[in-house]
Amino acid sequence: MADKAISTRSLLTLLSDFGDRDVYVGVMKGIIAQINPEIRVIDLTHQIPPQNIVAARFCLMNAYPYFPDGTVHIAVVDPGVGGNRRAIAVEFAGGFLVGPDNGIFSGVLSQTPAVAAVELTNPDYWLTPQPSRTFHGRDIFAPVGANLASGVPLKYLGKEINPTTLLQIGMGKCQTTSRGVLGNIQYIDHFGNLISNIPQSCVEGKTWYVEIAGLTIPGCETYSNGEVGEAVALVGSHGWVEIAINGGNAHSQLQINYQDTLEVINY
Amino acid sequence: MADKAISTRSLLTLLSDFGDRDVYVGVMKGIIAQINPEIRVIDLTHQIPPQNIVAARFCLMNAYPYFPDGTVHIAVVDPGVGGNRRAIAVEFAGGFLVGPDNGIFSGVLSQTPAVAAVELTNPDYWLTPQPSRTFHGRDIFAPVGANLASGVPLKYLGKEINPTTLLQIGMGKCQTTSRGVLGNIQYIDHFGNLISNIPQSCVEGKTWYVEIAGLTIPGCETYSNGEVGEAVALVGSHGWVEIAINGGNAHSQLQINYQDTLEVINY
Amino acid sequence: MADKAISTRSLLTLLSDFGDRDVYVGVMKGIIAQINPEIRVIDLTHQIPPQNIVAARFCLMNAYPYFPDGTVHIAVVDPGVGGNRRAIAVEFAGGFLVGPDNGIFSGVLSQTPAVAAVELTNPDYWLTPQPSRTFHGRDIFAPVGANLASGVPLKYLGKEINPTTLLQIGMGKCQTTSRGVLGNIQYIDHFGNLISNIPQSCVEGKTWYVEIAGLTIPGCETYSNGEVGEAVALVGSHGWVEIAINGGNAHSQLQINYQDTLEVINY
Repeated sequence: MADKAISTRSLLTLLSDFGDRDVYVGVMKGIIAQINPEIRVIDLTHQIPPQNIVAARFCLMNAYPYFPDGTVHIAVVDPGVGGNRRAIAVEFAGGFLVGPDNGIFSGVLSQTPAVAAVELTNPDYWLTPQPSRTFHGRDIFAPVGANLASGVPLKYLGKEINPTTLLQIGMGKCQTTSRGVLGNIQYIDHFGNLISNIPQSCVEGKTWYVEIAGLTIPGCETYSNGEVGEAVALVGSHGWVEIAINGGNAHSQLQINYQDTLEVINY
Repeated sequence: MADKAISTRSLLTLLSDFGDRDVYVGVMKGIIAQINPEIRVIDLTHQIPPQNIVAARFCLMNAYPYFPDGTVHIAVVDPGVGGNRRAIAVEFAGGFLVGPDNGIFSGVLSQTPAVAAVELTNPDYWLTPQPSRTFHGRDIFAPVGANLASGVPLKYLGKEINPTTLLQIGMGKCQTTSRGVLGNIQYIDHFGNLISNIPQSCVEGKTWYVEIAGLTIPGCETYSNGEVGEAVALVGSHGWVEIAINGGNAHSQLQINYQDTLEVINY
Repeated sequence: MADKAISTRSLLTLLSDFGDRDVYVGVMKGIIAQINPEIRVIDLTHQIPPQNIVAARFCLMNAYPYFPDGTVHIAVVDPGVGGNRRAIAVEFAGGFLVGPDNGIFSGVLSQTPAVAAVELTNPDYWLTPQPSRTFHGRDIFAPVGANLASGVPLKYLGKEINPTTLLQIGMGKCQTTSRGVLGNIQYIDHFGNLISNIPQSCVEGKTWYVEIAGLTIPGCETYSNGEVGEAVALVGSHGWVEIAINGGNAHSQLQINYQDTLEVINY
């Protein structure tokens, strides 16, 4: 079922920290509909914590594999808007990436390398030749993405750049220890589940537990392995070791936060 | 205008407790688009209070009548994911229901009985033959729903089961009293309106008031019958007796909560 | 790119204070899909602060210019539902407006005058001839909007009314002072940016600063002109003078609120 048989450029996703109170996202969709009403738009999320490029990088890296080849992904978490950071579009095996050159795409590109990249320097594909200093999502990224999704070749959009020059954000690497693997929390989801940067391969076929914040948490198969209210460690649906509380919220109840350290220990 | 003239399976709704911070819902939409890009997806809500099957049951029961026949409704509030609960698809006069067998569909089916049901045992229609233990929305329900919406017959999806074996959640029944009807609060909406399980038929054509939490609240025709800041009881758009505060929030201001008791009293 | 070349009535936007917890918005989309499954629906926002017509007016006024001509905009912030306020549909150069006659459209119409208007008195285009007293979004506005987006002429929907009789909400006007211009805060966005009613034209080509709540805030070109944590004033993407904190939240950190006064002062 997961075959990427459909190769179309008419699907476009949006990811941002714009929230859902304002009309920013709706305006981007209006612009896309003006350029090509046939484009189907899917929201990944607009609730990235404000200006948190690391969370945006994680979300996009975990979502893109489920989309058809050729999908255009626009991602706008852009604290440097109006400054010197480049606006870019990138072609990769899964489709296209459009947004600021601030590392937001470095998770995707760590798994599926870039084929080509351009700096968005051609105002013919912008909303206006005089874009605002504050909202490139509207003025540059939405119209550029809609044009890509309509079949405009990448190279028309600006000057070619070497993909190796794109800004990278490395996740903290896992470290092997005498007892297992040391890592940290790279994402906290809506349920309060604490998602680490330790991959499934470190625990597969093993008996294991986690030490974090002075707690010892057993490695389990599924949320409901624990009693209600009990903390469990398991491989989440993302493929990373995560910590959850059965029927509860691990983030608020355990007082563990982004980048806190954990150790996976094998028996 | 409410005629269900359009009988298509190409419309699909999603309801969950996934929230909008994460990419869980976006990923389900990507999978649906891969299977059939022509399916139109409508979000009912993804803000069901975490693991609150009763709230999900209420929301789905109140939404499905407004959709075309043949619509596929995927509902994922699934505290038992990875455990023993069955994954099911149900055919009923209004279309199809896809999700866990935990009572989430029992409101819909109390109004419109099931025609047929299957346990989702055929991995040919899953994202992968080895689904995760934590995210059946992605691995089973989204691809199964997309296949149903594309015309795959229900019976292909797994082994037939007797609809009478599906898990039921009964709402607390209303009780007739010497003064009127006793019921309880079954849902609290975004405006803080308190929605009871007492139907319109109990108050229609009568003069009535409500007693709840030591308060006496007059039965009215509309929100604006009360002064600003005043509590009113009325038949809400769902068809149930509800309590609201004109220009305010009854839930937070009156300190009334889920399952609190109320009595409708006729003059 | 901003040419409004596509003149179609098959695009429809929704704006409300319904939030995203309940199924109210999903139900409206189900009704629209029953009337015409080809209509594409775009959410502007459903997070207008409850019953805040001024915020709704601002949001719609700032969003409509980005949509194709012929778009139908349904807006439902409707504290007077069930009372005496009129339900209306308005034709203007950009398309159609559908909702309550409470001033919600007066921002759009201050920029692009109405061509024609009707009171929605024809129940043939409603969901039911007996609409609820509490949810005209479902019972009247969604079906009327879907019919407009399907090509039904405006005049079929009810009795013609004179557009000059539509309720207006004027924004507080800016006042010229000896030092510059006096205005107030008319909107607060998701980032906590404080958006005034002082237009770009008052500061263009000038050197300027803002006085507000005893603070002096420099006029800048872009958010990143300030140090992290520093307040800046700039012309936001809406075209109004706004106050932001680089990397922070001006609303919560500066304790400035809706309708607070500010003065733009020229050096």
